[in-house]
Amino acid sequence: MSKVFVHVGMSLDGFIAGPNRGPKNPLGDAGTSIHEWMFRQQAFRDAHGLGSGGETGPDNQRLELLVNRIGANIMGKRMFEEGEANWPEEAPFHNAVFVLTREVRSPWKRPGGTTFYFVNNGIEAALAKAREAAGAKDVRVCGGNQAIVQYLNAGLIDELCISLTPVLLGQGLRLFDGIEKTRISLDLIESASPSQAVTHLRYAVKLR
Amino acid sequence: MSKVFVHVGMSLDGFIAGPNRGPKNPLGDAGTSIHEWMFRQQAFRDAHGLGSGGETGPDNQRLELLVNRIGANIMGKRMFEEGEANWPEEAPFHNAVFVLTREVRSPWKRPGGTTFYFVNNGIEAALAKAREAAGAKDVRVCGGNQAIVQYLNAGLIDELCISLTPVLLGQGLRLFDGIEKTRISLDLIESASPSQAVTHLRYAVKLR
Repeated sequence: MSKVFVHVGMSLDGFIAGPNRGPKNPLGDAGTSIHEWMFRQQAFRDAHGLGSGGETGPDNQRLELLVNRIGANIMGKRMFEEGEANWPEEAPFHNAVFVLTREVRSPWKRPGGTTFYFVNNGIEAALAKAREAAGAKDVRVCGGNQAIVQYLNAGLIDELCISLTPVLLGQGLRLFDGIEKTRISLDLIESASPSQAVTHLRYAVKLR
Repeated sequence: MSKVFVHVGMSLDGFIAGPNRGPKNPLGDAGTSIHEWMFRQQAFRDAHGLGSGGETGPDNQRLELLVNRIGANIMGKRMFEEGEANWPEEAPFHNAVFVLTREVRSPWKRPGGTTFYFVNNGIEAALAKAREAAGAKDVRVCGGNQAIVQYLNAGLIDELCISLTPVLLGQGLRLFDGIEKTRISLDLIESASPSQAVTHLRYAVKLR
């Protein structure tokens, strides 16, 4: 049975992006510091068409495992809009992306296998479509934090993967803002920090 | 050279205690969930005079290593007041504890080796006294969050040890509230989660 998972980078103080986010500053002030370890990995460079020269060590292997699980993606409207202004022509997903939005828009097909579908009837409908598109592979809920929290609160996430970086942001978007803590519980599956640049945390999510 | 370290339990969403804290509710609502793994350990039971029967596995070994480093403690006024109402007669520190407070009070000696000293002239003075009391051992800054953040912002912490538990609190006291993120940087020394009940994180703290 395919799974629904989140994979997100988080600062030690709980932020997934800095303040003052927008299409010209998609990760917010200092937000890139959360993801610097990832930008260096070959799996990231492959997805973004950046050629060779990336790291191929244990962090890359873990990132690659996650990337290879993905059969379809779900993302919120703001994340899409910020990405639309910044992704290369060959968008870095290489499969179907379902965007949660009120906008009525035809699918937007990009070279390299990414097609964005705009879903107007809620998170469960988007998930049903993503599951169908993913087939035997998994569905990744990409973000932003509101989309992640909506899916968590609805009990629709099986696995929460956090790349916890030794960074303090002080302000910005908190991953867990709006979480209904009485609805879900987490079981740690594993943690590892083979390179000391990042701690890979993986939790099973259960409804209480 | 002896070190100054923090060891604190934190929920995955960044809280070290729940809301509605006070002497009758020292960890705040649901705050005990952050520390349940620790209450089960023999090193905790030893310090609190609770007898045998605790866990003696890898989490206990890590806790014991931290406890054995401590030559003196520093804590904030509110943490002391909440503890004063709840610690057993034989307070669980078994060495000197320097309390940051405006209260002028004689040292309070407890059976079992704990003596509380009340320091009225700031965090650096308290640290100088704690270093002297600790000798070759380390100084632990116990908490609360304000004391920890004051010491971090002043560049006086060498090591930040966080027991990260797979718990979401949603509200309460955030460990890093008030942190001056531009002043310090963190290097991950190690992470481990041998029992999956908790992730032991250890960071070196540096002034930028």
